[in-house]
Amino acid sequence: MKIDSVDFFYLALPEIQNIGDGSQDSLLVRITADGHVGWGESETAPLVSIANWCHPMSHSACKPMRDTVLGQTLDDPADIDRITVAVQADGLDTAQTDHTFAGVEIAMWDLLGRKLEEPAYRLLGYDRAYPKTPYASMLFGDTPQETLEGGKRARAEGYRAAKFGWGPYGRGTVEEDRDHVFAAREGLGTEGILLVDAGTVWVDDVAMAEPRLAALQETDATWLEEPFIGQALTAYRDIAAISGSVKLAGGEGAKSFYEAQHLIDYGNIGFVQIDTGRIGGLAPSKQVADYAVAKGITFVNHTFTTQIALSASLQPFAGLEHHTLCEFPVQSSEMAVALTGGATVPRDANGDVLVPEAPGIGMEPDLTAVKPYLQDVKIRVNDEEIYRSSTIN
Amino acid sequence: MKIDSVDFFYLALPEIQNIGDGSQDSLLVRITADGHVGWGESETAPLVSIANWCHPMSHSACKPMRDTVLGQTLDDPADIDRITVAVQADGLDTAQTDHTFAGVEIAMWDLLGRKLEEPAYRLLGYDRAYPKTPYASMLFGDTPQETLEGGKRARAEGYRAAKFGWGPYGRGTVEEDRDHVFAAREGLGTEGILLVDAGTVWVDDVAMAEPRLAALQETDATWLEEPFIGQALTAYRDIAAISGSVKLAGGEGAKSFYEAQHLIDYGNIGFVQIDTGRIGGLAPSKQVADYAVAKGITFVNHTFTTQIALSASLQPFAGLEHHTLCEFPVQSSEMAVALTGGATVPRDANGDVLVPEAPGIGMEPDLTAVKPYLQDVKIRVNDEEIYRSSTIN
Repeated sequence: MKIDSVDFFYLALPEIQNIGDGSQDSLLVRITADGHVGWGESETAPLVSIANWCHPMSHSACKPMRDTVLGQTLDDPADIDRITVAVQADGLDTAQTDHTFAGVEIAMWDLLGRKLEEPAYRLLGYDRAYPKTPYASMLFGDTPQETLEGGKRARAEGYRAAKFGWGPYGRGTVEEDRDHVFAAREGLGTEGILLVDAGTVWVDDVAMAEPRLAALQETDATWLEEPFIGQALTAYRDIAAISGSVKLAGGEGAKSFYEAQHLIDYGNIGFVQIDTGRIGGLAPSKQVADYAVAKGITFVNHTFTTQIALSASLQPFAGLEHHTLCEFPVQSSEMAVALTGGATVPRDANGDVLVPEAPGIGMEPDLTAVKPYLQDVKIRVNDEEIYRSSTIN
Repeated sequence: MKIDSVDFFYLALPEIQNIGDGSQDSLLVRITADGHVGWGESETAPLVSIANWCHPMSHSACKPMRDTVLGQTLDDPADIDRITVAVQADGLDTAQTDHTFAGVEIAMWDLLGRKLEEPAYRLLGYDRAYPKTPYASMLFGDTPQETLEGGKRARAEGYRAAKFGWGPYGRGTVEEDRDHVFAAREGLGTEGILLVDAGTVWVDDVAMAEPRLAALQETDATWLEEPFIGQALTAYRDIAAISGSVKLAGGEGAKSFYEAQHLIDYGNIGFVQIDTGRIGGLAPSKQVADYAVAKGITFVNHTFTTQIALSASLQPFAGLEHHTLCEFPVQSSEMAVALTGGATVPRDANGDVLVPEAPGIGMEPDLTAVKPYLQDVKIRVNDEEIYRSSTIN
């Protein structure tokens, strides 16, 4: 097969709010090759990645991605590997490259899976998929009382694990943060797996993170996620050395296998969280999963958007029986819900998440349902329209 | 002062060639505040960074840069620091952020320097500037004979140091690479400082780099630059352990202080090469220079474009007397030459480069001269023109 077309569908709510909810917009990618279709999604600022796709060449290591991808042969996983190497070389000097490519790469796996009638996780090398325990991913409330309610709601909905993140956490006093963490634990109950996400709030300041550890230890939190930005390896290492029973989690911002590897090797994290829509797709995510196994730490998906993103993010660790936690977005926007026509990744009687057994990434977008959210983009350079967004009929 | 306006001028040659020459286009940035003007340049794919500047918000950590920058107070260096922190938080989930911000940040230093009538290096904390020994930066020839001619030309032009990079190096046999390196040494003469740039050609494959070391040692090369991509820290460390008299150089791709720090701490490089137009501007570059001093390694600028980029890139290590090498672009395009109306960073009787003592970054663009290269960009999302490029009158 040859890649005949790549279409980006930029979807967005009519009003984007200034909150940490990544499901307010989406960059959906469709690839066609010899009549076959594949779908993927990049977790990115859509217009920046569209520009990365179509921009005029700057020099030999700074080319538009479409020149590298269109027309490529795509018959088996080795082709995806070859195309990835070419994209990274041609886009070496554009920081956005892997970020943009993620959705394209996922769509290639989806297309190959549909063609070969295999779920993507099999193409990645796993024989079977194991159920995952979803954790409800939610924002901290504005008050401890709201956080408590969130915890109760997660428990009432049957979640055995919940993550609280962003919001006021880390921005007020140690005592206020403590109240939020204890409220979360109270709402979730003593049995639930409690996870806390600081959302990089302390940047690289270990002294800000350290006094928060006691409350996390006392409430038996499983992990402290992203106390720092993902590049602050020394800070991760220093807090990991004193965090006791609370493991460090990080990696969602990784834009390459290497960034995740550095957090594992030099940051001493215990959970590596990978967003397939940022790191460059399924293959680098699988590479991280293999590395996590080799290093004795745990792989977890990062997903805060759609069910398509969730299904893609499950594939790279589907076959790892003992890597059981799975981020499950519970506050997705109406648009994110519409993207799959309300369909969700399947769950079993225990509430565990099942990796879809359908070919490819196993979820399909409902283009008609998201048509109202489609953004019409046109980019002109001099007298030429270099980009016009695809339409939905 | 308040930042009143930020204009991007996207300049490009009529034909961009598929070669490693970054001076074929440019993203020039102009900032105004209370009647003062400052100039900077990002070394980026211009359209991608323009999109990063103006895109619709995705969520709270993925905002358009213009919303964060416009209207900010800019009275002293602490304001630049504060604005940088805000830009990085608001653009956390866009990989392109630091890359785009570089030109804006440089323009802020230039504006402050002009306002305060101080060269930027003084605002960065240096008392005085020391001359730098320029090395001629050129591509390897297609044949060893062409490489030899390049070396001779550099010597004839008075260069005491030269760097040969990219082209065929690393793509053919070990013997062919050896011939090129010996030809470079022959052309340059026994006294010249010989530098070799592999341009990331071996990605992360130490076994490809290792057999090239002998020729570099025999020709007394000072450094081997970028045998691998900047994130392949383990590969850098492994080759540094066996490279003997040849030091490793890298860091030009660093898009943050941290990436450079990791190459120093974990990659064991001996020379850290920083492009102010990529790493996010002058302040993170100065932070790397301070770190290099603390770690006993050498800071070098990376510059392969214009004299404005060169002058900016000198500021962060202007005051380091013993960090003497300076990359000096000798194959810049006609557009890059026109950008400063043919003016260059000054040199003394020895041919050494002098950091300009004029206020700010000390070089001024000639807008009239580059008007023929100005690219007209328009971006529409739905019915709104969200970006229209500035004109030159």
